[in-house]
Amino acid sequence: MTKNVAIVGASGYTGRELLTLISRHRGMVATEIMTARAGTTPDAPQFPTDPVIAPLDLSRLSACDGVFLCTPHGAAAPIAKAALDAGCKVVDLSADFRLRDEALYQSTYGSAHPAPLLLREAVYGLTEHARTALQHARLCANPGCYPTSVLMPLLPLLQNGMLDDQAPIIADSKSGTSGAGKAPGERTHFGNVHENFCAYGVGNHRHAPEIRQEAGTQRIVFTPHLLPTFRGILSTIYLSPKAGSTVAAMRSCLAERYAKEAFVKVYDNGWPELKCVQHSNQCHIAIGQSGPLVVVVSVIDNLVKGASGQALQNMNVMLGLPESEGLQ
Amino acid sequence: MTKNVAIVGASGYTGRELLTLISRHRGMVATEIMTARAGTTPDAPQFPTDPVIAPLDLSRLSACDGVFLCTPHGAAAPIAKAALDAGCKVVDLSADFRLRDEALYQSTYGSAHPAPLLLREAVYGLTEHARTALQHARLCANPGCYPTSVLMPLLPLLQNGMLDDQAPIIADSKSGTSGAGKAPGERTHFGNVHENFCAYGVGNHRHAPEIRQEAGTQRIVFTPHLLPTFRGILSTIYLSPKAGSTVAAMRSCLAERYAKEAFVKVYDNGWPELKCVQHSNQCHIAIGQSGPLVVVVSVIDNLVKGASGQALQNMNVMLGLPESEGLQ
Amino acid sequence: MTKNVAIVGASGYTGRELLTLISRHRGMVATEIMTARAGTTPDAPQFPTDPVIAPLDLSRLSACDGVFLCTPHGAAAPIAKAALDAGCKVVDLSADFRLRDEALYQSTYGSAHPAPLLLREAVYGLTEHARTALQHARLCANPGCYPTSVLMPLLPLLQNGMLDDQAPIIADSKSGTSGAGKAPGERTHFGNVHENFCAYGVGNHRHAPEIRQEAGTQRIVFTPHLLPTFRGILSTIYLSPKAGSTVAAMRSCLAERYAKEAFVKVYDNGWPELKCVQHSNQCHIAIGQSGPLVVVVSVIDNLVKGASGQALQNMNVMLGLPESEGLQ
Amino acid sequence: MTKNVAIVGASGYTGRELLTLISRHRGMVATEIMTARAGTTPDAPQFPTDPVIAPLDLSRLSACDGVFLCTPHGAAAPIAKAALDAGCKVVDLSADFRLRDEALYQSTYGSAHPAPLLLREAVYGLTEHARTALQHARLCANPGCYPTSVLMPLLPLLQNGMLDDQAPIIADSKSGTSGAGKAPGERTHFGNVHENFCAYGVGNHRHAPEIRQEAGTQRIVFTPHLLPTFRGILSTIYLSPKAGSTVAAMRSCLAERYAKEAFVKVYDNGWPELKCVQHSNQCHIAIGQSGPLVVVVSVIDNLVKGASGQALQNMNVMLGLPESEGLQ
Repeated sequence: MTKNVAIVGASGYTGRELLTLISRHRGMVATEIMTARAGTTPDAPQFPTDPVIAPLDLSRLSACDGVFLCTPHGAAAPIAKAALDAGCKVVDLSADFRLRDEALYQSTYGSAHPAPLLLREAVYGLTEHARTALQHARLCANPGCYPTSVLMPLLPLLQNGMLDDQAPIIADSKSGTSGAGKAPGERTHFGNVHENFCAYGVGNHRHAPEIRQEAGTQRIVFTPHLLPTFRGILSTIYLSPKAGSTVAAMRSCLAERYAKEAFVKVYDNGWPELKCVQHSNQCHIAIGQSGPLVVVVSVIDNLVKGASGQALQNMNVMLGLPESEGLQ
Repeated sequence: MTKNVAIVGASGYTGRELLTLISRHRGMVATEIMTARAGTTPDAPQFPTDPVIAPLDLSRLSACDGVFLCTPHGAAAPIAKAALDAGCKVVDLSADFRLRDEALYQSTYGSAHPAPLLLREAVYGLTEHARTALQHARLCANPGCYPTSVLMPLLPLLQNGMLDDQAPIIADSKSGTSGAGKAPGERTHFGNVHENFCAYGVGNHRHAPEIRQEAGTQRIVFTPHLLPTFRGILSTIYLSPKAGSTVAAMRSCLAERYAKEAFVKVYDNGWPELKCVQHSNQCHIAIGQSGPLVVVVSVIDNLVKGASGQALQNMNVMLGLPESEGLQ
Repeated sequence: MTKNVAIVGASGYTGRELLTLISRHRGMVATEIMTARAGTTPDAPQFPTDPVIAPLDLSRLSACDGVFLCTPHGAAAPIAKAALDAGCKVVDLSADFRLRDEALYQSTYGSAHPAPLLLREAVYGLTEHARTALQHARLCANPGCYPTSVLMPLLPLLQNGMLDDQAPIIADSKSGTSGAGKAPGERTHFGNVHENFCAYGVGNHRHAPEIRQEAGTQRIVFTPHLLPTFRGILSTIYLSPKAGSTVAAMRSCLAERYAKEAFVKVYDNGWPELKCVQHSNQCHIAIGQSGPLVVVVSVIDNLVKGASGQALQNMNVMLGLPESEGLQ
Repeated sequence: MTKNVAIVGASGYTGRELLTLISRHRGMVATEIMTARAGTTPDAPQFPTDPVIAPLDLSRLSACDGVFLCTPHGAAAPIAKAALDAGCKVVDLSADFRLRDEALYQSTYGSAHPAPLLLREAVYGLTEHARTALQHARLCANPGCYPTSVLMPLLPLLQNGMLDDQAPIIADSKSGTSGAGKAPGERTHFGNVHENFCAYGVGNHRHAPEIRQEAGTQRIVFTPHLLPTFRGILSTIYLSPKAGSTVAAMRSCLAERYAKEAFVKVYDNGWPELKCVQHSNQCHIAIGQSGPLVVVVSVIDNLVKGASGQALQNMNVMLGLPESEGLQ
């Protein structure tokens, strides 16, 4: 009854996080641990406890029930196609299937979409908002880390009509460096991150179109920042309530929407911090008044609820396993 | 011709920073280095290179041209009064003289103002905006660190009528821990700061009334956050331009306003980071479009332009010394 | 069949770590979660997911199979006595039962031992070296974090006579700040730890007598240092091999001694880093030549193998549970 | 009377540090700011306040009194030769002229020495120990950062015969990441440094031969470690005193040797930390007993006394300027 899964792109941060999570899962085994980098022989583990990572071998996917794609965007789509053809359920952690509009993908990611026919089929896997669709899906587009932190508090408020229709929705987000991946570069050099802090992608970050698509509005103003931490995203969100929407009502809306959810906690008081959710699949949310606006603070671990944890949550749903297995 | 100054409260971060700055000043000597804590004998230096810090002795202030007050709010006002009576110029780094309204001081700081008669006299020392008044002032209220980072880009835009009169002005500010002072506490325990990040004082921080007073509007939404760094403040500010105000025009407004200022840099492109200004008295500002809003990023070193550096800049003006001396 | 345990001192770092570990244990439940601080009412949790921590109530221990003491030294001994009288197995994470000699305890910790009769009974719980004794023990003195990191590689080499009998054994150890506990203080203030590093307790640290006792030699030179990290200890150990002992032979000695141990890994090549063991109960060891000496590098997570993980490992042995349960 | 100097390799950390130091120097101007990387056009500054860095142009060196070489080892020697031919004084911050033995250079750095004839001429610039020679030198080999931290306390003790002739001299050194340079790589990726710590180069680091050469003994055991900090080196040094050498006598030896030195401080009590010397050209030293050995702790800022500060100190001596100018 144990499900066999493959992890493609296992040498990066999200792949490694998935391996850790699956090692605690009582109904899933990672039988294939691969990298998609071209022409590779198996990675020599740096430390004795590192996993052995094999070169990509599509022929081995047919023995798997599910495939996790932890590869860079652009590289994931062709592997997804092969895995679907082999009969696997696929959760893609890259950006390849997040935007439903082919033209928007091209303008956002700078190249034509590698598998446009699959765009219609992919389910955007914000699990708490896509559970039913995921039960029958073959292909899940795992949400971006920033969009997860913003959409979790935003969607219930939008769906219940509690926000001013005309006012901007401002998400000021701060992320640890693991979101930038394992490959060294200027941006993640210790000397450039430590005792430093910066905004980046102001007005043009790739996660803004994704948030707009799912929120169903173009009024999103999104500014990401890079924290001198490894894990975690904290989004501070500024909202104009519709006339008559009180903070108390908005808090109740969120609390009721997520009351039965294992991985979401809406605070009655106090404000969540990164450390409340690091190494967990939780999303913690608080809301309060600040002058004329309402402020929401939302925190997740970008590698867990923002990536590998939500991917496992989605795969659990797609394979008919208990949704929380491996995640508590 | 050398000016003699006293530093009261020399054991804290801002006092130490002042000592460092003044040691490079060619026209000023710190002849009195005191602490205001009750009943103290001189501090035993922790390291051989630490300064000896004497107990407060008001009688020694009369030999000084200027006095810097680096004491906690509430403690500064009585010392300021004594120093003024002794004929000194006074720059107060505490909050005691920042709010002009006595009632607002009481509601913000929780106790009656200790020297209300002096409130009218104090000049709010955002140097670039108060230079003329400072030349004749006896008492300078040195601005708070967060307000400095917000007001520097905001004031020219407001004064030139470039912002929507009705829209909120949102300042999402992030500060290093030195702003919380040298005394250990839960908030600044290494285990609570490192690999963590949080918002605090949401909707009720003491610097919001100060920003509102100086900006001349109640429409300020201010959220401070605590970074796992020691130095620096980065404020991300969201503005609704008045119809017809373009980003380019707003950038020009800022660039022209600060063109001759030694300590302000308006970027043509790129975005400033904390490391651009740490250990300097600089304020760096960039501005850009993001969806329907304009985003400003402003950075300062909270201990320099946000405290001791601006204090020295103000004292230089008050004592008729070159404004940049000791600060470059 | 599930064992009920109490955690006394649950609000500190080691208590919290134990709660996390036990939550994953399939045969143990933490039924009592207490603090030993005087006169307390239950702690108000700071975050919604924090545990409720009750005041100490010795009468409730009789319903427990085991008791973990995470209290400061001096406070643990009387509670240990009460818990033993109530029929519990006791693992004490404080220093109260580590030194077998009453006079040495007094000279090291500055006060008379609170329960000297129990000193003879306590088993020093370096699990891999005390397993048999622990199976029949009522009281386990959980080793100090530094001693664990030093003794794990040292004991097999000493026991196999591979070291020069006269030469000093030098342990240069570096620890994260969580070893200094949760209470704020000068030593762990963010501004004093971040971007800093220091030696402390040079020549007189309390863990030196403990290492000497267990190593059976006074020739220990031990220097602890404070790292700007939260978790982990790395000890660099300098050894003079006995004539004829090669590095290869010493490596084999360690590898064979620990070949069957789940929580010890001896490297064939490469050097372990803190990140190899953080959040795990592992001790990783490497050994190599450096000029005339042999260098050993040993790493543990000070909160896990150096405290709560080893405590749980010991309790598992004492209660007849699988030794690795809750630790993998 | 102002001296003109060139900085070749100005885009790295040591080049930038030199620019900062020289900007405060009242008798020196950096008239040439160059990079030695092949085929470069001037670097586009990342931030408006960055210096413009020109491609290497040897013909411009003849207008300079002094040249600082901040290039990688191997690249420095040919430029040094050209600069000497142009009549400049040269301080080389690379390793090219530190080892006097050509064969040792080749075995240590893996390639033949590019300018062996200059090896004899170069003065090893541990300033406090080479002042006289430097006054007449054309070429200074600026010491390595680790060797500076080890040799400063070690040399006086060796020269006064206070150490056991046969015992090993153990230097356990810990450095911030700036020692690894500005170029991103695995070793300095934020995710690999933050909340981590490791030993490296155990038994085979390139600075060990340099320490052995200057100490005049092969009995050096040197282990470098990488700290999660940006600046600073702390070396913990374990020494066997010669029979009759007390710690007090050894402390006096150091204190007397350095009594008149502006940049060395020998502690009467307490232990220096990184923060005591960061951003300064100081070397702080403390010494104490630990069991049978004597322990020395020495701290420097690796970018200042360990590189650019000492380089400027050396250039000041070579050009006949006040030795401390620009460094206080």
